[in-house]
Amino acid sequence: MSAMPYSPVTEEVLAELARIVGERHVLTDPEKLEAYSHDEVADRECAAMPEVVVRPQTAEEVARIVRLAYERRIPVTPRGAGSGLSGGAVPLFGGIVLSTERMNHILEIDEANMMAVVEPGVVTNDINEAVAALGLFYAGYPMSLETCCIGGNVAENAGGGKAIKYGVTERYVLGLDVVLPTGQIVELGGKRLKDVTGYNVLKLMVGSEGTLGIVTRIILRLLPLPTAQVVLLVPFADVRSAVAVVPVLMTAGGVIPTAIELMDRLSVQASCRYLNEQLDYERAGAMLLIEVDGSDEEIVRRDYERIGEICLDHRAQEVYVADNHTTRERLWRIRRNIAEAFKVISPVQSLEDIVVPTASIPDLMPELDRLSDRFGVQMPCYGHAGDGNLHVTVVKDPAEPMDAWRRKLPECLTELYRAARRLGGTISGEHGIGSKRKAFMPLVAGEAELDLMRKIKRALDPRNILNPGKIVDL
Amino acid sequence: MSAMPYSPVTEEVLAELARIVGERHVLTDPEKLEAYSHDEVADRECAAMPEVVVRPQTAEEVARIVRLAYERRIPVTPRGAGSGLSGGAVPLFGGIVLSTERMNHILEIDEANMMAVVEPGVVTNDINEAVAALGLFYAGYPMSLETCCIGGNVAENAGGGKAIKYGVTERYVLGLDVVLPTGQIVELGGKRLKDVTGYNVLKLMVGSEGTLGIVTRIILRLLPLPTAQVVLLVPFADVRSAVAVVPVLMTAGGVIPTAIELMDRLSVQASCRYLNEQLDYERAGAMLLIEVDGSDEEIVRRDYERIGEICLDHRAQEVYVADNHTTRERLWRIRRNIAEAFKVISPVQSLEDIVVPTASIPDLMPELDRLSDRFGVQMPCYGHAGDGNLHVTVVKDPAEPMDAWRRKLPECLTELYRAARRLGGTISGEHGIGSKRKAFMPLVAGEAELDLMRKIKRALDPRNILNPGKIVDL
Repeated sequence: MSAMPYSPVTEEVLAELARIVGERHVLTDPEKLEAYSHDEVADRECAAMPEVVVRPQTAEEVARIVRLAYERRIPVTPRGAGSGLSGGAVPLFGGIVLSTERMNHILEIDEANMMAVVEPGVVTNDINEAVAALGLFYAGYPMSLETCCIGGNVAENAGGGKAIKYGVTERYVLGLDVVLPTGQIVELGGKRLKDVTGYNVLKLMVGSEGTLGIVTRIILRLLPLPTAQVVLLVPFADVRSAVAVVPVLMTAGGVIPTAIELMDRLSVQASCRYLNEQLDYERAGAMLLIEVDGSDEEIVRRDYERIGEICLDHRAQEVYVADNHTTRERLWRIRRNIAEAFKVISPVQSLEDIVVPTASIPDLMPELDRLSDRFGVQMPCYGHAGDGNLHVTVVKDPAEPMDAWRRKLPECLTELYRAARRLGGTISGEHGIGSKRKAFMPLVAGEAELDLMRKIKRALDPRNILNPGKIVDL
Repeated sequence: MSAMPYSPVTEEVLAELARIVGERHVLTDPEKLEAYSHDEVADRECAAMPEVVVRPQTAEEVARIVRLAYERRIPVTPRGAGSGLSGGAVPLFGGIVLSTERMNHILEIDEANMMAVVEPGVVTNDINEAVAALGLFYAGYPMSLETCCIGGNVAENAGGGKAIKYGVTERYVLGLDVVLPTGQIVELGGKRLKDVTGYNVLKLMVGSEGTLGIVTRIILRLLPLPTAQVVLLVPFADVRSAVAVVPVLMTAGGVIPTAIELMDRLSVQASCRYLNEQLDYERAGAMLLIEVDGSDEEIVRRDYERIGEICLDHRAQEVYVADNHTTRERLWRIRRNIAEAFKVISPVQSLEDIVVPTASIPDLMPELDRLSDRFGVQMPCYGHAGDGNLHVTVVKDPAEPMDAWRRKLPECLTELYRAARRLGGTISGEHGIGSKRKAFMPLVAGEAELDLMRKIKRALDPRNILNPGKIVDL
């Protein structure tokens, strides 16, 4: 990390921040700051302390903070729930962490247009709880939906468990109010289902990891709530058999399932133990969790029966059907808690997010075996098999010294990413680049593409104050 | 139009172009050039002659042309079928028109990943014809699909008749090879359903109207071909009754129809006469064409019956059901040919593309009546009512002198756009800004937003050679 020409947060700056947001929303106590120094990346080398945390409540306050930072050349790192997995919300160069925790209101539920207008600090799941009674739902489904914030979902273009059918966050973002790195406020998009009025700056903002603007208001499209849902749990003898059926499911059934999630034995075991949950996983080397939803129970039944048949024709050991809310939620809970469970078991690890063409998932598996052998690490694998997005996790052997782990991890990741690339894939499907994967960008993006990104960043943030040090170095 | 520091296309440049693409693909004959001087915008004041047309066949040829133009500072305007409706493919500053007509190959149909890889000059409908036998389809459905090119669809982020259910072009573009304004080739995205590897430059390119790059290869996501489709034709006494039911259909049925198209009496009449087609439109002031599709005939039947009931409960005169391919196609053909029919009847007109929140369509209608009265013009209205995107067309009275028309049109459009804006809408849902709407951008985008667009354009195209004069002035 080279020295950057940033100014420190002086007493005078603190006083100005207090004038903007009120004194009790300017945090400088090191004990309080610590919580804002990291996200959910396990490696604490990715952490960095802010000089100050501010908690604005309005777009105007955000704009005033950014203008102050722009004038003084102080880095500003926006932060939602801090549940990110790429170091995106970490203030690498100190400065100001701008927390959206007080901007947590659902401003409007517009039934007639089937849209919700929300602030960035709203917890994603709260949106669904607020609109379900109206027969509506928000289709984003990140695994952390009970804790993550919708602003972070927008910043990372979060994916999740239901993306094969419903797409990722960007599909549902119709409007954004954004504070630019110069402190101006722009209103992008609106309550319209189509809009080609100039460059799609809205979609550029989505997934820009808080480096091009700070989102202060989000218009989300909602869909009619599916009235029929079934989850299948399908055990296989081994991972290869489980992943071999995925491309078949995607193409042979004439149906796009809502979810096809892969959990290998280690993943199921870890999550079940973490949750104190019983599931008969011992015989199964891997399981698929498959969801089908729709507006009609008969059709959903027909679809899941077809899917079940395909699985049984392709070496599934069994097909368990969960057709009530409690059982469905029980299975999804096991899936959602895998990452958390692994962190408890082995805090030293690297949670990955590679994505490959769906049809290439079977070809990925021998690569993982090869890397696991070569580097002497466990590599449990789970994730969104239906869209080729797998959370391979590289886990340190407890007996191995830390310095040996630190030496070999970058090489192991390089080989993993190269394998994904060879298969037509890339290094992140939904967690983002942040600081965690920045050094690996040249493996999957040519110099001309990296240069495009740099040009965009420089054009919009000439002083490089907004979340510096992420995605690409300038 | 201010004088720009562009260089002319000299004999030396022509010789260089001939070395790149071969002499017979360098057109300079004025009679041949004329065809490349306009798109489908009726107003020939939007036309401009190129100095030369080149027809490259490969990305490398495109890159060499752009590098030459970059070095010499010659404008390059990419062009597909020329079926655009905003002047996007018109070479406002002369220079080179780069036609993709020879880059018209479907390179690959990847069944296992449900994707197609195509060149930009492929006619959109040809993609569907190529993949239908495999049980797949490309969900983009612009009304000009039998003539327009997929490259133009990408450049304009084309919408179409089925966007309420399937979304617009960008949802299906997973990968793009792009020649940048500096002549470099970048490969954006790929055969992956999710990708958050840095800024979403891919989506920025989609809809950038050929001003940020020239697309040379496109990876499209395909979907399982719906096996059941029904089109309803629903006449109403007047436009207001027809549009009043649209928000109800979108929310009350629990189903997102594939299409809800509005055709007022003038539109139906014009298209029927143009096609020599019989349809009993005399009693109806407006009609809705509603499509429902799915994987099951019973469900489609249940859905369309529900929709039919809602229509009949909301003042529909009748509900006609078209459940075989011939009849469905007959109705869609009437809808698709409205724009063409109006051009034959009244070549002097302005085909508009406003979009408003779906629930605000009923509020738009009195505004149209008011403007029609005030400016003494007919304003037939048709389009994609289901997503609030209406092709209001301002038609010159044949008796009115041209200069009076030219004087009042900008004022009439300004009022129309302001009305859309007041309702939360904007000036283009799918046709783009091009040169036709550039002057009106400040009505719907603030200075900070326009400035963002300028910054992006300048960062990527420092010499402003790629399709200059479109979207925003620099």
